[in-house]
Amino acid sequence: MSTFGTLFRVTTYGESHCASVGCIIDGVPPGLKLTAADIQVQLSRRRPGQSDLTTPRNEKDLVLIQSGIERDYTLGTPIGLLVKNEDQRPHDYTETDLYPRPSHADYTYLTKYGIKASSGGGRSSARETIGRVAAGAIADMYLKQIHGIEIVAFVSSVGKISVPSTTISSTEEDEDHVDDVLNPEYIELLSTVTREKVDEDVTRCPHAGTREAMRARIIRAKEASDSIGGTVTCVIRGLPAGLGEPVFDKFHAKLAHAMLSIPATKAFEIGSGFSGTQVPGSRHNDPFVLKENGGLTTSTNWSGGVQGGITNGEDVYFKVGFKSPATISRPQETAQYDGTPGTLAARGRHDPCVVPRAVPIVESMAALVVMDQLMIQNARRATAAPLPPITSLPPTMVLPPGNK
Amino acid sequence: MSTFGTLFRVTTYGESHCASVGCIIDGVPPGLKLTAADIQVQLSRRRPGQSDLTTPRNEKDLVLIQSGIERDYTLGTPIGLLVKNEDQRPHDYTETDLYPRPSHADYTYLTKYGIKASSGGGRSSARETIGRVAAGAIADMYLKQIHGIEIVAFVSSVGKISVPSTTISSTEEDEDHVDDVLNPEYIELLSTVTREKVDEDVTRCPHAGTREAMRARIIRAKEASDSIGGTVTCVIRGLPAGLGEPVFDKFHAKLAHAMLSIPATKAFEIGSGFSGTQVPGSRHNDPFVLKENGGLTTSTNWSGGVQGGITNGEDVYFKVGFKSPATISRPQETAQYDGTPGTLAARGRHDPCVVPRAVPIVESMAALVVMDQLMIQNARRATAAPLPPITSLPPTMVLPPGNK
Amino acid sequence: MSTFGTLFRVTTYGESHCASVGCIIDGVPPGLKLTAADIQVQLSRRRPGQSDLTTPRNEKDLVLIQSGIERDYTLGTPIGLLVKNEDQRPHDYTETDLYPRPSHADYTYLTKYGIKASSGGGRSSARETIGRVAAGAIADMYLKQIHGIEIVAFVSSVGKISVPSTTISSTEEDEDHVDDVLNPEYIELLSTVTREKVDEDVTRCPHAGTREAMRARIIRAKEASDSIGGTVTCVIRGLPAGLGEPVFDKFHAKLAHAMLSIPATKAFEIGSGFSGTQVPGSRHNDPFVLKENGGLTTSTNWSGGVQGGITNGEDVYFKVGFKSPATISRPQETAQYDGTPGTLAARGRHDPCVVPRAVPIVESMAALVVMDQLMIQNARRATAAPLPPITSLPPTMVLPPGNK
Amino acid sequence: MSTFGTLFRVTTYGESHCASVGCIIDGVPPGLKLTAADIQVQLSRRRPGQSDLTTPRNEKDLVLIQSGIERDYTLGTPIGLLVKNEDQRPHDYTETDLYPRPSHADYTYLTKYGIKASSGGGRSSARETIGRVAAGAIADMYLKQIHGIEIVAFVSSVGKISVPSTTISSTEEDEDHVDDVLNPEYIELLSTVTREKVDEDVTRCPHAGTREAMRARIIRAKEASDSIGGTVTCVIRGLPAGLGEPVFDKFHAKLAHAMLSIPATKAFEIGSGFSGTQVPGSRHNDPFVLKENGGLTTSTNWSGGVQGGITNGEDVYFKVGFKSPATISRPQETAQYDGTPGTLAARGRHDPCVVPRAVPIVESMAALVVMDQLMIQNARRATAAPLPPITSLPPTMVLPPGNK
Repeated sequence: MSTFGTLFRVTTYGESHCASVGCIIDGVPPGLKLTAADIQVQLSRRRPGQSDLTTPRNEKDLVLIQSGIERDYTLGTPIGLLVKNEDQRPHDYTETDLYPRPSHADYTYLTKYGIKASSGGGRSSARETIGRVAAGAIADMYLKQIHGIEIVAFVSSVGKISVPSTTISSTEEDEDHVDDVLNPEYIELLSTVTREKVDEDVTRCPHAGTREAMRARIIRAKEASDSIGGTVTCVIRGLPAGLGEPVFDKFHAKLAHAMLSIPATKAFEIGSGFSGTQVPGSRHNDPFVLKENGGLTTSTNWSGGVQGGITNGEDVYFKVGFKSPATISRPQETAQYDGTPGTLAARGRHDPCVVPRAVPIVESMAALVVMDQLMIQNARRATAAPLPPITSLPPTMVLPPGNK
Repeated sequence: MSTFGTLFRVTTYGESHCASVGCIIDGVPPGLKLTAADIQVQLSRRRPGQSDLTTPRNEKDLVLIQSGIERDYTLGTPIGLLVKNEDQRPHDYTETDLYPRPSHADYTYLTKYGIKASSGGGRSSARETIGRVAAGAIADMYLKQIHGIEIVAFVSSVGKISVPSTTISSTEEDEDHVDDVLNPEYIELLSTVTREKVDEDVTRCPHAGTREAMRARIIRAKEASDSIGGTVTCVIRGLPAGLGEPVFDKFHAKLAHAMLSIPATKAFEIGSGFSGTQVPGSRHNDPFVLKENGGLTTSTNWSGGVQGGITNGEDVYFKVGFKSPATISRPQETAQYDGTPGTLAARGRHDPCVVPRAVPIVESMAALVVMDQLMIQNARRATAAPLPPITSLPPTMVLPPGNK
Repeated sequence: MSTFGTLFRVTTYGESHCASVGCIIDGVPPGLKLTAADIQVQLSRRRPGQSDLTTPRNEKDLVLIQSGIERDYTLGTPIGLLVKNEDQRPHDYTETDLYPRPSHADYTYLTKYGIKASSGGGRSSARETIGRVAAGAIADMYLKQIHGIEIVAFVSSVGKISVPSTTISSTEEDEDHVDDVLNPEYIELLSTVTREKVDEDVTRCPHAGTREAMRARIIRAKEASDSIGGTVTCVIRGLPAGLGEPVFDKFHAKLAHAMLSIPATKAFEIGSGFSGTQVPGSRHNDPFVLKENGGLTTSTNWSGGVQGGITNGEDVYFKVGFKSPATISRPQETAQYDGTPGTLAARGRHDPCVVPRAVPIVESMAALVVMDQLMIQNARRATAAPLPPITSLPPTMVLPPGNK
Repeated sequence: MSTFGTLFRVTTYGESHCASVGCIIDGVPPGLKLTAADIQVQLSRRRPGQSDLTTPRNEKDLVLIQSGIERDYTLGTPIGLLVKNEDQRPHDYTETDLYPRPSHADYTYLTKYGIKASSGGGRSSARETIGRVAAGAIADMYLKQIHGIEIVAFVSSVGKISVPSTTISSTEEDEDHVDDVLNPEYIELLSTVTREKVDEDVTRCPHAGTREAMRARIIRAKEASDSIGGTVTCVIRGLPAGLGEPVFDKFHAKLAHAMLSIPATKAFEIGSGFSGTQVPGSRHNDPFVLKENGGLTTSTNWSGGVQGGITNGEDVYFKVGFKSPATISRPQETAQYDGTPGTLAARGRHDPCVVPRAVPIVESMAALVVMDQLMIQNARRATAAPLPPITSLPPTMVLPPGNK
């Protein structure tokens, strides 16, 4: 359905050519200072037309807040907001419409609903993500201002051009010689990257040695009237330990759910991910060490900040795979709805690569997951807090009161 | 929380040393012929002690049905079931308990709840999956008997030993010469593999050329008192088109959520997954062709049966990454709960590799997702079915009545 | 929270002085012919200023559809809609604001959120119901057009003026002489009343012998700068048997939940309700008789169409109690937020009695419950339909196939 | 479905003649001291055979805890528990089974599911409530021990025999002479009644002047092989202000949902309820006065502790109507499943009146609602707590920090 979250919850509406797209955000903490401008920042990072790498449409995407805020403070009641669609007319019928676009949602929407919007894939439109980004921007602002939680995403690969991450060699024989599961430079990048750094380049790749090749790869796709996929990596720093709900709503399970609900996504991995499956436990396990302030930390973080589905206080990092956009203007041999074979060349201009624009969407969905899990854990802690301390159990079964 | 699903819903309980583990399954279709033996099949595939590759514990794991079935027919009411724990005493306290096991859930459970089971990671125990497998077995049986939907999972890699799947070369220059996104043999394997074939070998890898090396790799981990990870690939054949709920509950988003709720999972990809992000849209798109019986099919299936988050009627296939088990008997340098450094060597025998046993768990979670999505789509179709046919819209906006 | 429903789901936003109030309706059957005018009908019945019995404000309440509909057909995607607030400025601060209005939501909203809208009770505003009425209008239209389900509410009492319903005498000794649990004329009214009939009089009471007294009672309250409560009775005719989900989501439990979520409600009863608790089972039970077309019906319907929480195909009727409106312009001795005693006289004009305007709100909430339960039962039936017939059970355990 | 609650959540299973009935309770605060005996107290109050007023079956109803507790402390993980059914054989088929019992759930279950348990109404069995009572007992214990919240229910009427509550006269003319909306003695009873007091008499009516007549009424029903209904009133004392979620999950809406999910319920009212609808606002409104400790309280409490759907810190009291039990051994003229008319006389012994046994069930459902709403409000407060204080808004818009 179109609702995401338990206590911090967003419900979205809208498709390409209707009057507006928007959302209702329920569960926003009351008393938070919030203006449209706070939301607009991420919306503007999301919108097309920001560089020669994206589609030339330049929609303004101005957010209009409808409710839930008075004199710049949230009331705790639902925030309704919307962004008007520039082109609100139903799509004009042309010969192109005879074809379901290959690997797009035209066919599946028609099959699912028995009817589809004239513009095709309905809610699979990238414009649907406006509501998520707006909701995520609110969560993100709260998390950063109040808890110092930083969520930063960036483009980690375009086609075969990738920020170097793994040090795992491709041969079985090398197994015993690996020192690190992932590249130390990559880990360093994760711990320092900022949104400002990411936005310095239109590719939204903060790795100097890679972004030029990425840019060239996207331009090559564009010139070929083709498209290319890529990956977005995201790091969440400053998370408290204890988030994530056993057993079905593990922290990374909710993250994966959130990420794969973004259009064009096909893959997700947390921590060392697929590469880590190749590394023996003795080297993949993250040993504990004493923190300076007294608690425990881990000396490595191949787990990506999540163990047993619960955050352990280390950085959470994950990668999301986006397929090459389905809509290309290069002619494709395919079939019409009735099966007649033919050649389809999509009209108009299209994003040859979505990953730069996907960066704020990934951040927003991450913020929604963190905010919701934080509120659920807050409920548990606040409910358990007044219980008397336990003195009769073995010490390793009970957290010392100071750590609560 | 411990509940999964909207209309077909499982709620589980239990940890390692309590009286029993079990679940309540709500939303089972009434009038389905069902006995304990039907459920036991998958439970027995899940349990340890099946080969020299797994832990030597041999729990019987006999399912005891409590409700919801009378004279071998389901009543439509919740099915309560449980499996007794053989060892129901709280864990005895030893020096080992001073250490949170690295990369296990001991530390995170303690942090989350402020208290933990003496045995450690509480609900992160593999025994928790018994409830899911039992619930999944019921869904699986319905889907297969009534709709011919086949769900088959198998081990696709152990460490660096992998069933060959991708044909994508590692250099940018080769890009224009790739014919297939994935290996044709691999695609053939997906379309033909059966559970019987998978169970022929203790590795649960159906690929003759790979399983011996896998087996050797697991034995090497075992002999080194170490562990090794791997991947499980799963294919769902015979799915109807139209499953998956836009926008947040896309079919693959729910699959990812379900899969990453399984203990030790770190990664998920559907269709061509991360590899597919490297392939231009013109080659990655799946062209439509006329089916023999009149509808549309696609000539390739790099999408993995899901487009726009909705199934298109082609095979759904996905891969799940399992990290190397955290519990190893090889000594590890780490710290105690209070930060004191020391060496931990886990007691007892442990699975050096979980992927063979994870196969029925992956199948079961897949069955839960399919069943729930099928029921939701059934609700939509049955509600829309009596509406009068639409004659006033452009033909490409409306599915011809025969296809409903 | 601000979301209601499982498969047919409405989420609302908005309070008195924000930009707009509105909602997102998810789960609307695709392919339904629907225009703004279809929704406007019920919105217009809900709005104030319709007679001298209600507040003289005359807001236009024009619905603006944002999404989910194209060329007058629903797409199956969420319908976003909104109604602009005429007065969008934050409320000006006056001395009156020093007082929480007695029995209003000013105090509880402030306590709950720590902040409240300047206009007071925030989401407890009657304007919030616009979203519900709009959503209910869509459900209502589907239910009536496609299934012939009629939902009609009417005013059954104002103050002590009540449409005669019960025949139960007030003395224990009479017990054995009662022939009917409820008045036969009342039962006849329930089975024939229409919205047209209800709207003939501004009281929205269809009972000729009562409405004049009701009208006089409301006018008396108005003239006294006071207010008066009342009840709304609603009947749902044409419901299929089998709706309602055991055990927590019984049909009448969901109805009660829906009704008591309407502002100013304090009581709910279904069928013979509280009066029925006084009647022995031998007279209160509804005996079964053969229907003309072959199935079973009941010769009486004191159950109100629900038995064991599941509809039995008879008319569902229930009554909802609305307290006297809290906002009155008559001076009240009370205290300011800081406890200072004083006299509050609310400014402006207020509804002396809300029940006439509550009629379409009750109908809409009823439609939301019926639609959601219908879709859930549709899911169950469509999922169970392809199962083979059961031949091995005692005949009274299985419904004959023809009745399915 | 069979699940109730958002953060504190119970899922139940089981019917009359299956192996056991039980539940899974998720969201229990970790670190709570809890033994089976704590749960057994309410289960024993619920079970039949406690007096000559109830059915003579004497099931032991011993609770068996399966999980979630170790060494008498809750782990925060789900608590699975069950109570074995004494008679686990499917019901033997007799001529009586040809008849759907009038006003029972036999017919509706068969219609809903197409199959039913041989014993009839399946999950509508009173034994299903065991799971709820067990879950409620845990919530109740936490609420009382940690927050001093007391939940006490009692029988307030049997048939026409009622604890005097209202002072509202039956004639319109008296209107201006009423001093109190409800009887002061009744309000006093609500503020002082205890479970011990309630249990002093088998009727579970704490009002000395009424209970003898109630007892006689029940015995008269029993001797007539008939049954009689009644009401249960419940008071919740010590509730914090601020519970209840606008707009659909108002505190009393959730209470009503919970109460009407109990078998045999037909009516619910909070505060002055239906009677209060007859009283003008000027007399029904609850004026604010300064509390001794500085905050606000109300000098009357006709609202029943809920205003705008949110608790205001006053006592919550509500009444639930239970119909006369449908199963009576007195012969009834009715029809068989196939429509054949005939006479049904139910076998065995049956409760002539359920309200005494319903008392702990009402308390338990109330405890479930309070606990869940408390946890949700805890989440909100704990999330908003670290926000900086607001200084720029009019003082009546913001709660002073000390009151948070």
